[in-house]
Amino acid sequence: MKTVLIYSGGLDSTTLLYHLRHEGHVLRCLGVDYGQRHRRELESARMICAPLGVEYRIADLSSIRPLLAGSALTGDIEVPDGHYTEQRMQQTVVPNRNMIMLSIAIGWAVSLKYDAVAYAAHAGDHTIYPDCRPAFAEAMARAVKLCDWRPITLHCSFLDKSKADIVRLGADLGVPFEKTWSCYRGGELHCGRCGTCTERREAFRLAGVADPTVYSTQTDQLGGCDESQI
Amino acid sequence: MKTVLIYSGGLDSTTLLYHLRHEGHVLRCLGVDYGQRHRRELESARMICAPLGVEYRIADLSSIRPLLAGSALTGDIEVPDGHYTEQRMQQTVVPNRNMIMLSIAIGWAVSLKYDAVAYAAHAGDHTIYPDCRPAFAEAMARAVKLCDWRPITLHCSFLDKSKADIVRLGADLGVPFEKTWSCYRGGELHCGRCGTCTERREAFRLAGVADPTVYSTQTDQLGGCDESQI
Repeated sequence: MKTVLIYSGGLDSTTLLYHLRHEGHVLRCLGVDYGQRHRRELESARMICAPLGVEYRIADLSSIRPLLAGSALTGDIEVPDGHYTEQRMQQTVVPNRNMIMLSIAIGWAVSLKYDAVAYAAHAGDHTIYPDCRPAFAEAMARAVKLCDWRPITLHCSFLDKSKADIVRLGADLGVPFEKTWSCYRGGELHCGRCGTCTERREAFRLAGVADPTVYSTQTDQLGGCDESQI
Repeated sequence: MKTVLIYSGGLDSTTLLYHLRHEGHVLRCLGVDYGQRHRRELESARMICAPLGVEYRIADLSSIRPLLAGSALTGDIEVPDGHYTEQRMQQTVVPNRNMIMLSIAIGWAVSLKYDAVAYAAHAGDHTIYPDCRPAFAEAMARAVKLCDWRPITLHCSFLDKSKADIVRLGADLGVPFEKTWSCYRGGELHCGRCGTCTERREAFRLAGVADPTVYSTQTDQLGGCDESQI
């Protein structure tokens, strides 16, 4: 099967990249520049694809950023600290991000005469991101089958997996976790405090896999938190 | 109801603009520059919106054109002459164009806290454009309801209307047809021979409405065709 993967260079989509290759998919990867603070994820993606010989293209949508105002990820408001499940993390929702990325990936797949498109939504995303919910993915899968005369398949292999499940799978597949980028703040190091850093740390801990990430805030510096809380 | 309309400056979406205003919608319009030959449609759109006091924004997606290769509309192959229903008109399909345009319009609607998104797919498009079929529109409507925590509605008011129906409705609503642009070749005048010019001419004739369009090819110059065929 020939598949276009929406690929951010993060932990989840890198594990999906390795998983789909392991399953025999011929892959091309699509990154999307939507004006995110953490544009450095695009560079991580490039560095992971290169040694695998997987083509990686970036769709430059930075010009539409003014239409997608109101998210902490595009710099309109501060990136909040805390856990993904907290209500304020909804500030990190980028309006309709997944449908936008999927639609372009599908356009590329149709143009290439590829069979499928994949994205790495997982169970831990459902609380905050409406476009990671199974019902959304199911509706999109139906639209994707009908958007061209030749049906395209949507793969969402991680929809019912936790991030800890993904870390375990990634460890089995030899994913170079140290090259992946999660932090929404996009600084020199992972901040260790934003929603995605908190979730990343927690996933390694729950999976019982050593976390190779260098965080600028160590767990003992997190005010009011101890290791068991993050 | 507050609605973002995908607006090309063509006959169908201009009539939808007038129809939705007539129905009481508060509108903003989105044009999409995807590297189409007929970019001048964007200028037509601007000139129609301005006197109505309707905001018109263009999403610049010209950078993703290389990902959507293989269509006559983006200049990879010649624009064919003929009728919309002919098989070769499938050369004018731009991969996944409607989902891409809808996804960005929806993102804008979510950001604006608007209620709905509209596009002007009509019954005459179904033969050639997979993403104008009712089944596609229904699947998208479901995805659109789920893409944000606040459901967005998809309006496809013309799905079961012919282009002649649209011309009749537009005439009743006072649509300035002479300002609209259809021709896929994007020259100085409407060419009068490509699929969309052929369909436009036919629609005015079937509707019994005077066609104000100046075509560079008059009907008596169309080789092998007489008035009754176009």
